[in-house]
Amino acid sequence: MDKAQDRKAWSLRGIIPENHPRRESLLIREKVVEGMMENVVVPQGLIAQGRGECFDYLLGERTQDFALRAIEVSAAMLVTAKSPVISVNGNMAALAAHEIVDLAKSIPAKLEVNLFYRDEERERAIERKLREAGAEEVLGVGKNASETIPELFSERRRVSKEGIYSADVVLLGLEDGDRTEALVRLQKKVIAIDLNPLSRTSLTATVTIVDNVVRAIPELKKKVQDVRNKDREELERLIKGFHNRDNLRSALRYMSERLAQLSLTL
Amino acid sequence: MDKAQDRKAWSLRGIIPENHPRRESLLIREKVVEGMMENVVVPQGLIAQGRGECFDYLLGERTQDFALRAIEVSAAMLVTAKSPVISVNGNMAALAAHEIVDLAKSIPAKLEVNLFYRDEERERAIERKLREAGAEEVLGVGKNASETIPELFSERRRVSKEGIYSADVVLLGLEDGDRTEALVRLQKKVIAIDLNPLSRTSLTATVTIVDNVVRAIPELKKKVQDVRNKDREELERLIKGFHNRDNLRSALRYMSERLAQLSLTL
Repeated sequence: MDKAQDRKAWSLRGIIPENHPRRESLLIREKVVEGMMENVVVPQGLIAQGRGECFDYLLGERTQDFALRAIEVSAAMLVTAKSPVISVNGNMAALAAHEIVDLAKSIPAKLEVNLFYRDEERERAIERKLREAGAEEVLGVGKNASETIPELFSERRRVSKEGIYSADVVLLGLEDGDRTEALVRLQKKVIAIDLNPLSRTSLTATVTIVDNVVRAIPELKKKVQDVRNKDREELERLIKGFHNRDNLRSALRYMSERLAQLSLTL
Repeated sequence: MDKAQDRKAWSLRGIIPENHPRRESLLIREKVVEGMMENVVVPQGLIAQGRGECFDYLLGERTQDFALRAIEVSAAMLVTAKSPVISVNGNMAALAAHEIVDLAKSIPAKLEVNLFYRDEERERAIERKLREAGAEEVLGVGKNASETIPELFSERRRVSKEGIYSADVVLLGLEDGDRTEALVRLQKKVIAIDLNPLSRTSLTATVTIVDNVVRAIPELKKKVQDVRNKDREELERLIKGFHNRDNLRSALRYMSERLAQLSLTL
């Protein structure tokens, strides 16, 4: 059995019992393992998935009120943006390629592949995944990532000129803190989807959606449709009234209370 | 560049800056990534590592009082055991092979490879890792795993006759809940090292050490040396006075309070 075969055998998707209490979470996990087999996800992405699972557990694996608030504000920012871009990395593509493409079309926003560990083969694998999910244009692949973000080292600063480089609003998920900070310094509005309310990305972003991308992205698409009916002034008021730190504090308090409650059930 | 080469390149151990605020945690992470390259760890093991990182963060990445209490009781159980066995899986071998071998010698306890995803090639890779770390005998590899634990399906129930099958005390880390339950039903005393105080393993084990194996195992070795000076009656009192659920509740309360405190710093 060669190595690739061996790795194929690692997927458990087919053998998780229908009635397993954690079936949903296990199926999501297998998507990321399969993503690694397809060269879409790196091993460090699996570790990130595990960290996410823990935080998601603390959220009760549901989109909570503070996330819904952030999602509504994000929708307002996206529909009022001049050049919104969705930055896609390996985990996002493995978990929610279809949902991302649907969201991009509904805004409409550009899609850009943006990897922490750059690797053209992997960029193309992610592009393929997005195209299979219906994307017509995918930026940031190969030579298209020709512009550089100042102050970031080596390959991590490369972005697409017509994508992130010229965007006013960037939506990203599961992103590295350094890069989020660099984008914010460039005066871009950054919407982050991150399960960890204490990550540097969460603390730095303009709006942080503390939720699982698998739930947050479809919810965001719904809200994009809802907020279209509101006038621009109302949307701007919505955006101005949002305080990211306060919202992150609500997320932390929720997690803290959930742990306290769980301790009473023991 | 072939696939194996490619995977080698995934390790970041050499490029994590000396002054990175999360250097320790990142270096531990790379050990697990390298463990996958050596066929010691499966992808699901990387996800487990990520979940652990999140819980460890909630512990302040320190061995807390409730863990020290559980470690002392575990030491008492191990030195008074007739046939103590340390059950080793891929993540444990990748993270703490030397520490496990040192602990086994100090008790003394047998070492047994025990995998959720059985695979003889991987068993041998783990055996190699333990032997390189100084182990003289490693049970549970290949034909040695000839006995079966009742009520567990397929390959997951196979254990060594002179190891876990006849053990009275089994120390395990990062274990699957089904197997922990099966061992407890067989009247074995189970000591679990698990960062998640709510996992089925944590709830089922006789003693749960809510701590990172990287810190807990050396601490346990120290305590094994300490408790040797106590007489048997005192050790038995120590064991009898320990209530695992109460201790798990302390761990959960600690995590809850830490999150509440962190929310105040935002």
